Amino acid sequence: MTDSRELAHGDADDLVKSADPEHPANLICTLCRNFYTLGWVTGTGGGTSIRRGPHIFIAPSGVQKELMQPDNIFVLEYSTRSYLRKPPSLKPSQCTPLFLAAFGRGAGCCIHTHSQWAVLVTLLVERDAKERGEEVGERCFEIEMIEQIKGFPKGRSKPGMMGYFDRLRIPIIENTAHEEDLTESLEEAMEKYPDTYAVLVRRHGVYVWGDNVQKAKTQAESLDYIFQLAVEMRKLGLPWTL
Amino acid sequence: MTDSRELAHGDADDLVKSADPEHPANLICTLCRNFYTLGWVTGTGGGTSIRRGPHIFIAPSGVQKELMQPDNIFVLEYSTRSYLRKPPSLKPSQCTPLFLAAFGRGAGCCIHTHSQWAVLVTLLVERDAKERGEEVGERCFEIEMIEQIKGFPKGRSKPGMMGYFDRLRIPIIENTAHEEDLTESLEEAMEKYPDTYAVLVRRHGVYVWGDNVQKAKTQAESLDYIFQLAVEMRKLGLPWTL
Amino acid sequence: MTDSRELAHGDADDLVKSADPEHPANLICTLCRNFYTLGWVTGTGGGTSIRRGPHIFIAPSGVQKELMQPDNIFVLEYSTRSYLRKPPSLKPSQCTPLFLAAFGRGAGCCIHTHSQWAVLVTLLVERDAKERGEEVGERCFEIEMIEQIKGFPKGRSKPGMMGYFDRLRIPIIENTAHEEDLTESLEEAMEKYPDTYAVLVRRHGVYVWGDNVQKAKTQAESLDYIFQLAVEMRKLGLPWTL
Amino acid sequence: MTDSRELAHGDADDLVKSADPEHPANLICTLCRNFYTLGWVTGTGGGTSIRRGPHIFIAPSGVQKELMQPDNIFVLEYSTRSYLRKPPSLKPSQCTPLFLAAFGRGAGCCIHTHSQWAVLVTLLVERDAKERGEEVGERCFEIEMIEQIKGFPKGRSKPGMMGYFDRLRIPIIENTAHEEDLTESLEEAMEKYPDTYAVLVRRHGVYVWGDNVQKAKTQAESLDYIFQLAVEMRKLGLPWTL
Repeated sequence: MTDSRELAHGDADDLVKSADPEHPANLICTLCRNFYTLGWVTGTGGGTSIRRGPHIFIAPSGVQKELMQPDNIFVLEYSTRSYLRKPPSLKPSQCTPLFLAAFGRGAGCCIHTHSQWAVLVTLLVERDAKERGEEVGERCFEIEMIEQIKGFPKGRSKPGMMGYFDRLRIPIIENTAHEEDLTESLEEAMEKYPDTYAVLVRRHGVYVWGDNVQKAKTQAESLDYIFQLAVEMRKLGLPWTL
Repeated sequence: MTDSRELAHGDADDLVKSADPEHPANLICTLCRNFYTLGWVTGTGGGTSIRRGPHIFIAPSGVQKELMQPDNIFVLEYSTRSYLRKPPSLKPSQCTPLFLAAFGRGAGCCIHTHSQWAVLVTLLVERDAKERGEEVGERCFEIEMIEQIKGFPKGRSKPGMMGYFDRLRIPIIENTAHEEDLTESLEEAMEKYPDTYAVLVRRHGVYVWGDNVQKAKTQAESLDYIFQLAVEMRKLGLPWTL
Repeated sequence: MTDSRELAHGDADDLVKSADPEHPANLICTLCRNFYTLGWVTGTGGGTSIRRGPHIFIAPSGVQKELMQPDNIFVLEYSTRSYLRKPPSLKPSQCTPLFLAAFGRGAGCCIHTHSQWAVLVTLLVERDAKERGEEVGERCFEIEMIEQIKGFPKGRSKPGMMGYFDRLRIPIIENTAHEEDLTESLEEAMEKYPDTYAVLVRRHGVYVWGDNVQKAKTQAESLDYIFQLAVEMRKLGLPWTL
Repeated sequence: MTDSRELAHGDADDLVKSADPEHPANLICTLCRNFYTLGWVTGTGGGTSIRRGPHIFIAPSGVQKELMQPDNIFVLEYSTRSYLRKPPSLKPSQCTPLFLAAFGRGAGCCIHTHSQWAVLVTLLVERDAKERGEEVGERCFEIEMIEQIKGFPKGRSKPGMMGYFDRLRIPIIENTAHEEDLTESLEEAMEKYPDTYAVLVRRHGVYVWGDNVQKAKTQAESLDYIFQLAVEMRKLGLPWTL
């Protein structure tokens, strides 16, 4: 990701200035304020990225997400992976290669949260596997017969949403010391589960994407609802699958 | 539900345009914003419908409920079941036949939530029945001696609210693959429990209604309070009935 | 409580009209909006009353507390127990005699909540007593060595706030079918615990009062914090007293 | 802390009057409103202090933190420990000597919360020690392999943030009857853990600080996220360390 071109762009600020609340630079700020109240981006955690045509808009790293302004947004040219706009004194998100992996699969928006429900679900799946004597390795969170599963699409190659009797499977990858090092295993999980719109990261959180902003956001909400319900079910001794 | 008439109605938009915050099209939007913060309509789940005289106002399917505008509202003529207004590019709520079942019992407003407390209560009742060796079938959530029960009316044919020593019974029906297929069992539950103002749907949520908007909303709140309390009681090993 | 005088008062509305946000009729509305978000007055439950000089201002019964307007407030003359203002089509709060009991002990404001934490604490104390083989009867919630206990005053006759090493005792009375029938046992509990500023009602909620609005509100908050903490402690197997 | 000088300062109010939202007197009010919704400063509990150059700005004791105004803020001269501004009828925060201890270690902002998650974590560590047969004494909360640990700096003498594989250690000191009496043990814990940016207080809450306001706030958020996650992990029987 070279940044040689951005200095030549005197009008780079125009990329994030718009009175339209649906402009990606404005939408990312609105979404992040909402995500803050949901506990998804506590303490600068998490992130969000939107693709519009040739441009990728990305929230910066290490800022208070609920206070973010359009002026803080990075803009990347998708075809060249070069920054068209880099706000001075801010760092690009470490999630950038992971967001790009989602865009490479046709996503229009990708959301990364540190939701505690997501983290707890990965811990519970890990323990279940250990108790069954299985080795460490790629796992799946699986649940079925919950109405909210209908809030998730069947898959990239399949029209329509999942059904009540379908089993939702969200792959879990192992966390790494550096967020960008997750890219390879994220892409592997995407390969292995070509219909998934989300990947859990053990002891870390979740990446969720969608064809557009609305779909990514509502799919992220449905998934977090299911993770929270799954944790509460476990507290009450209720199984996730029948 | 034919929609032949709506095209002839050049003034169909007038049905949802009003400066009065108490107009059904405005009220549905206000309620849904509130329900979003309560976790009842996460990720386009749930729905709300209001009857005013000959018209039924219904939130559309698959939209972000907290962002809904009056312009998104469907209007149905109750007597003919025909749409007077169908916003282009939106789909009518799959809950429509279920809302109509409530209006057929005199309701003025019907609320459908995916509240996790409602879902958990249906799962706990299901497990209790299994542990008692009972077969799958229609069940009831039952609780007694909780002050908030007074927030629920005695029944359609009985004036006044329930008392502290009355036992609250909310029937539970099995979920189906398609929401509209719930209609028959919902109506059966309404027949069997003629005084109920709510029906739980297993692994799905709850339908609550009331004589008017205020009653439907406060009854939905009281019921959700009781579901949440019931789940917390179970975590602490406290019984629902004595 | 006769209401003969209020009809003669053409200016009764002046009692609740004020541009001052600290006026009791405005404060009750502000407090109730806050209490709604705290889950204290769900579905028309709970209530609040403020005394200012000779007048008692009371939220009405059965209204949505978060939507209340100053125009909805009842005003009672304390010395004669007669209503100076009764909003037409609203009913006075059934908590009125209980609020008056608090004002009779010098309170300037009394808050009644249906907080689930309060209800759960009464259920846990009840079960503990049963497990010890004790008969039904008046009980106390007791906790000690929690910093937030300092948010509670030592007692009416004792200056200053409780200390970290003091044991907080909140009496619990049995619930009754009708709220006003709680008055006698509430007054008995006040007699027996002359220093308490709160009384729990089994399976119902809590009454908290204070010398003025700020004290009643912050004491209600501190107490609810302690009730919630106590419930969480019990889930984790942590004892309330040492 | 003498207050002889403040009377001579006719312009002491200028110290807290500013149209700049980033002015410490304004920031403290904004932060405290946010902290109130997070449950950190319920019922006048907790507090916040900011250092700007030679001045320490401190929220007063015993006020409703979410309603605080810049006019309520105390200003202390750091070099002389004398008050430059004392709002009449308000009392300085009892946390003042603890805040000063943090500023003595280079902090730019210090936050004290009564978060229930912090309190529960101290109780769980205490019980674990008892179950291992250890005597009462200084302890540490320890957790590892949680992504949010990266939201915490390595230490005062070490550049950068903690890593995913680092173990987070937050010392716990015993609570005392009077908040100011915590100062000595707080300073001891700071000596013993020179890289820590937080100290837990048993059955009380937590002190968190940072090089500036943004760092203190986001570190406090990350830590509270970790405390909450740790409590939920314990409810599910999941260990904090491997």
